[in-house]
Amino acid sequence: MEKTYPLLNSVDFPADLRKLEKSQLPRFCDELRGFIIDELSTNPGHLASSLGVVELTVALHYVFNTPDDKVVWDVGHQAYAHKILTGRRAVFCTNRKFHGISGFPNPKESEYDAFVSGHASNSISAALGISVAHQMEHNDGKVIAVIGDGALTGGLAFEGLNNVCVNPNNLLIILNDNNMSIDMPVGGMSRYLTEITTSKFYNNIRFKTYHLLKQIGLMNDNKRNRLVRMGNSIKNVASGSHNIFEGLNIRYFGQVNGHDVSQLVKVLNDIKDFEGPKVLHIKTIKGKGYGPAEHDATVWHAPGLFVRETGERIKSDKSGIARYQDVFGHTLVELAESNEKIIGITPAMPTGCSMNIMMEKMPHRVFDVGIAEGHAVTFSAGLAKEGMMPFCNIYSSFMQRAYDNIIHDVALQNLNMVLCLDRAGLVGQDGPTHHGAFDIAYLRPIPNLIISSPINEIELRNLMYTAQLPDKGSFVIRYPRGKGIGVDWKNAPLVEIPVGKGECLKEGGKIAVLTFGPVGNAAKKAIDSLSEPEKAKVGLYNMRFVKPLDGGLLKEIAAKYKTVITIEDGVLNGGFGSAVLEFFADNNLAVKVKRLGLPDSFVEHGLPDQLYGLVGIDTEGILKVIKEFI
Amino acid sequence: MEKTYPLLNSVDFPADLRKLEKSQLPRFCDELRGFIIDELSTNPGHLASSLGVVELTVALHYVFNTPDDKVVWDVGHQAYAHKILTGRRAVFCTNRKFHGISGFPNPKESEYDAFVSGHASNSISAALGISVAHQMEHNDGKVIAVIGDGALTGGLAFEGLNNVCVNPNNLLIILNDNNMSIDMPVGGMSRYLTEITTSKFYNNIRFKTYHLLKQIGLMNDNKRNRLVRMGNSIKNVASGSHNIFEGLNIRYFGQVNGHDVSQLVKVLNDIKDFEGPKVLHIKTIKGKGYGPAEHDATVWHAPGLFVRETGERIKSDKSGIARYQDVFGHTLVELAESNEKIIGITPAMPTGCSMNIMMEKMPHRVFDVGIAEGHAVTFSAGLAKEGMMPFCNIYSSFMQRAYDNIIHDVALQNLNMVLCLDRAGLVGQDGPTHHGAFDIAYLRPIPNLIISSPINEIELRNLMYTAQLPDKGSFVIRYPRGKGIGVDWKNAPLVEIPVGKGECLKEGGKIAVLTFGPVGNAAKKAIDSLSEPEKAKVGLYNMRFVKPLDGGLLKEIAAKYKTVITIEDGVLNGGFGSAVLEFFADNNLAVKVKRLGLPDSFVEHGLPDQLYGLVGIDTEGILKVIKEFI
Repeated sequence: MEKTYPLLNSVDFPADLRKLEKSQLPRFCDELRGFIIDELSTNPGHLASSLGVVELTVALHYVFNTPDDKVVWDVGHQAYAHKILTGRRAVFCTNRKFHGISGFPNPKESEYDAFVSGHASNSISAALGISVAHQMEHNDGKVIAVIGDGALTGGLAFEGLNNVCVNPNNLLIILNDNNMSIDMPVGGMSRYLTEITTSKFYNNIRFKTYHLLKQIGLMNDNKRNRLVRMGNSIKNVASGSHNIFEGLNIRYFGQVNGHDVSQLVKVLNDIKDFEGPKVLHIKTIKGKGYGPAEHDATVWHAPGLFVRETGERIKSDKSGIARYQDVFGHTLVELAESNEKIIGITPAMPTGCSMNIMMEKMPHRVFDVGIAEGHAVTFSAGLAKEGMMPFCNIYSSFMQRAYDNIIHDVALQNLNMVLCLDRAGLVGQDGPTHHGAFDIAYLRPIPNLIISSPINEIELRNLMYTAQLPDKGSFVIRYPRGKGIGVDWKNAPLVEIPVGKGECLKEGGKIAVLTFGPVGNAAKKAIDSLSEPEKAKVGLYNMRFVKPLDGGLLKEIAAKYKTVITIEDGVLNGGFGSAVLEFFADNNLAVKVKRLGLPDSFVEHGLPDQLYGLVGIDTEGILKVIKEFI
Repeated sequence: MEKTYPLLNSVDFPADLRKLEKSQLPRFCDELRGFIIDELSTNPGHLASSLGVVELTVALHYVFNTPDDKVVWDVGHQAYAHKILTGRRAVFCTNRKFHGISGFPNPKESEYDAFVSGHASNSISAALGISVAHQMEHNDGKVIAVIGDGALTGGLAFEGLNNVCVNPNNLLIILNDNNMSIDMPVGGMSRYLTEITTSKFYNNIRFKTYHLLKQIGLMNDNKRNRLVRMGNSIKNVASGSHNIFEGLNIRYFGQVNGHDVSQLVKVLNDIKDFEGPKVLHIKTIKGKGYGPAEHDATVWHAPGLFVRETGERIKSDKSGIARYQDVFGHTLVELAESNEKIIGITPAMPTGCSMNIMMEKMPHRVFDVGIAEGHAVTFSAGLAKEGMMPFCNIYSSFMQRAYDNIIHDVALQNLNMVLCLDRAGLVGQDGPTHHGAFDIAYLRPIPNLIISSPINEIELRNLMYTAQLPDKGSFVIRYPRGKGIGVDWKNAPLVEIPVGKGECLKEGGKIAVLTFGPVGNAAKKAIDSLSEPEKAKVGLYNMRFVKPLDGGLLKEIAAKYKTVITIEDGVLNGGFGSAVLEFFADNNLAVKVKRLGLPDSFVEHGLPDQLYGLVGIDTEGILKVIKEFI
């Protein structure tokens, strides 16, 4: 692997790349790959998927006339090579850092970034819009959407595909199929399972086969997740007898080796002027060119710091404190062991939300439905309708995809089920597409929902325990990305928390600080840092529920304090503080309320501490506001 | 057609139906069809789709053991026959009426209604959940999802399909293909277009063909809409060489004549015990058995009152006042005539939102993308990214499906485009699944959005005019179902409205009434009905924008009035009134605020006037509150 980059250093923009001889491209790709590995070993980011599209990225910019031709990357964390080739090599060391370049394509950052792409499956619809606009404006610029096999399971991608053939357009869709985790025997089995005729015990056989394969070691969790997710569906038939793309009247080309840059250049040149919508199916290997990443693409999806030479990953957090997601994962298993109605549902995030722990222990009771948030929620609602107790776990920002499903399929029927929103609040370096900024505000208007957030790991467990008790209704639990505060949650007994009840953490006299979720810990630190007699003036309340609000407690607070400060890690418009304002207004309680939370703008990327500081809800920011009112 | 119903009257529940001889079923269907036509001629409802599934409904309840077997109806307005056969024949005369039975399946109403179904495309996901729950509980009850060809274009349906084959389940999906509006020659052309190989001018030829066919009268708008919507996609290939269902590893049976009840019973009996997921494709005719409805299913989708014998539709509204949707439709054409960047986008609602007017005049500039709200918004965003000016019109309650697309694909890039939310507020007889109750609250937290609502037809036009002026950003206009107030909008000049500026409609001294949208007219009436000196005390403000709020005006109001009453036709949690509370709190303005709007519960169905009375924001309700504070 290259460690010096003479060719790469000669290319600042795609125009430079196009001056290279075609025969130089393989070497160029090697340098580019080496550069990415080098950079990511010291500045963590999304490694495996970026390595998988090195040749594709080079071929696209070599063949197409970017930025006049538009490349729309689906799930933009694969776009590192693209960023490096489009004027950002020198600043790539700031990737994902506060005030540095974004880890995703961002049109504000570069004219080469044709569209925002943080959430999966939007590329075809966006590219179709761009392509139709080109046709209308008689602009002959080409439009290319690059979408992975995973993103293709999203309903939005299908809606896009379903519309691609309707209008006059020359859209090129590149299906980047990097299903490297399924090796040949399993792949063959998968195809066999696809083609097997439906027989009496067909489904049970197939289901048992997965587990048999697992027992004899032919399938690991990673492979299984992929298999279960994709099933025998779209991916497996892309090149089979029932070609869905041809079915949708989109010309299909493939498969092509996505790591043969010369062939890619040839094929792209061959088809680029071909009129009408078309799909090019390429096969790539996630983590290609870096042994450890090829070996375990899930771990190396975003590996953190590592030693390039050895592939040793450097553990940056040595605190031993568990992440909220792990508390969720372990507690779910614990609850499921005593409540046989509990089912786990995740749309393609078993590792991300730690539902893989239950998947390992109770594979029949966990469903990874692929990138399909809407289906995840409505499927859960179907399970709940028949008396099961689903725990559907979706990152807060992705839950936006299932908004109607929550209203129409869950809340309207007031079903007994649990929606867990991991990654609520600011997530850090993934930035504005991934911040869980809106969920408090978008869920609060929905009737019947119970909306809670724990202040720490123990309370997360207790809320989960409470939510699965009989007839609790539609129960939302939101909690942040990253680690907890380090309380001994493993030995804490599970205790029911009364729905709609907050708690007083500290009495005060003049100012009441009301918090929702883990931001309560920052508030506690801020108050603890005050010296007497100021400290005695400030009360602290962990409200736990934004819906139903603890009206009794709020009335007590209104009677006792002159000023209320609300703090939440969500947008202020319509959020927790707004709920408190509504309660006071509706109950004729004249209390001065100061609301702290996220602003009415998209918050940039950076380390969570930097961002919470930026928006003023870290300990320092909270302290400053308390002092203003004291 | 039958006018007496001896057989039907013998059947209260499916158990009674199953006592009939198979040979009696055709006659039973005739009676049932006659009964539906009779009832709907005097109590309006969804006629055409209900007539199309008479035989299917009878066959399902005859063959399956409902309610232990579960039938999930997609887009439940086709479920009238189902309702009549399941204990609700006697109360069917209350269909859609205030305190009567719901026009959609509703599990609270009957154990035969397996799942809520007001929004399209959810049946497969919900039924899969039910089916998997059955498997886990060793319940051998069957599960059937009935989905139309239209609903199958929704991404959620695809996400469901993509997961159907993964788990052990015996789900039966019935594809109710009622594409009756495309007659044989056009259908043949459609197939020809599907199979034509991609050639140089392929797309342009196809596009031109549509319009040629239209010119020579072979295609009417109805047919064209269907064709454009479905394109050459999923529906046309269901029985073709690329069978998507078989591709997704779901066993496919079809096509079967959906009006041959004997054959349906036979086929259902043949396949009902067949293990594994399966699709039965039936062909039906929308409006079957009633000539006028068969002839024009769009008009007879929900025809209002009519004379059964003649098919004459009885116009109940003789006011001649235009509906908001028509003002939208005509104004859009007017604006598009002078702004060539304007494009119309609708997900399967061209008639419902009156975009068919532009579709008629400028067919190349309107895109009906099918039931695919997410795609509609992201596709619009792609158009906007390249400088076009999309007007994307989606009913408020269906916009919930595109929530993430608004945040991620539109607002994050602050694109210049317009989102029009028709059917905002309470829609009336369609009830809780269709009320546009949540949009103010769910849109307000999103950065960059401009959120407006007109008080009348002229203001709707002016907001539309303003929104398409250069660099206005992401502009939302919400307006209600039904007719306006009758102002002369046709002759009013188009005037720009300053973004974020409200207006004083009447000065007062003690109470300021702040309204958002057409509810301002009810407030005006209420105030007008006061006698002096009370009337002089009450000011009225049409705020027009809930985002950005008119801060200057709010400060003036706070200085002048003691009490503010906010009124909105949306949920109170996080809505317009909440925005006003936030502004006052953030600006240290101590004003008493009383908020009127929709409660924190799902509002039932009934006439809009009844419902607005119920929630207290009709003239009378507003008057009552004003008097409390005067």
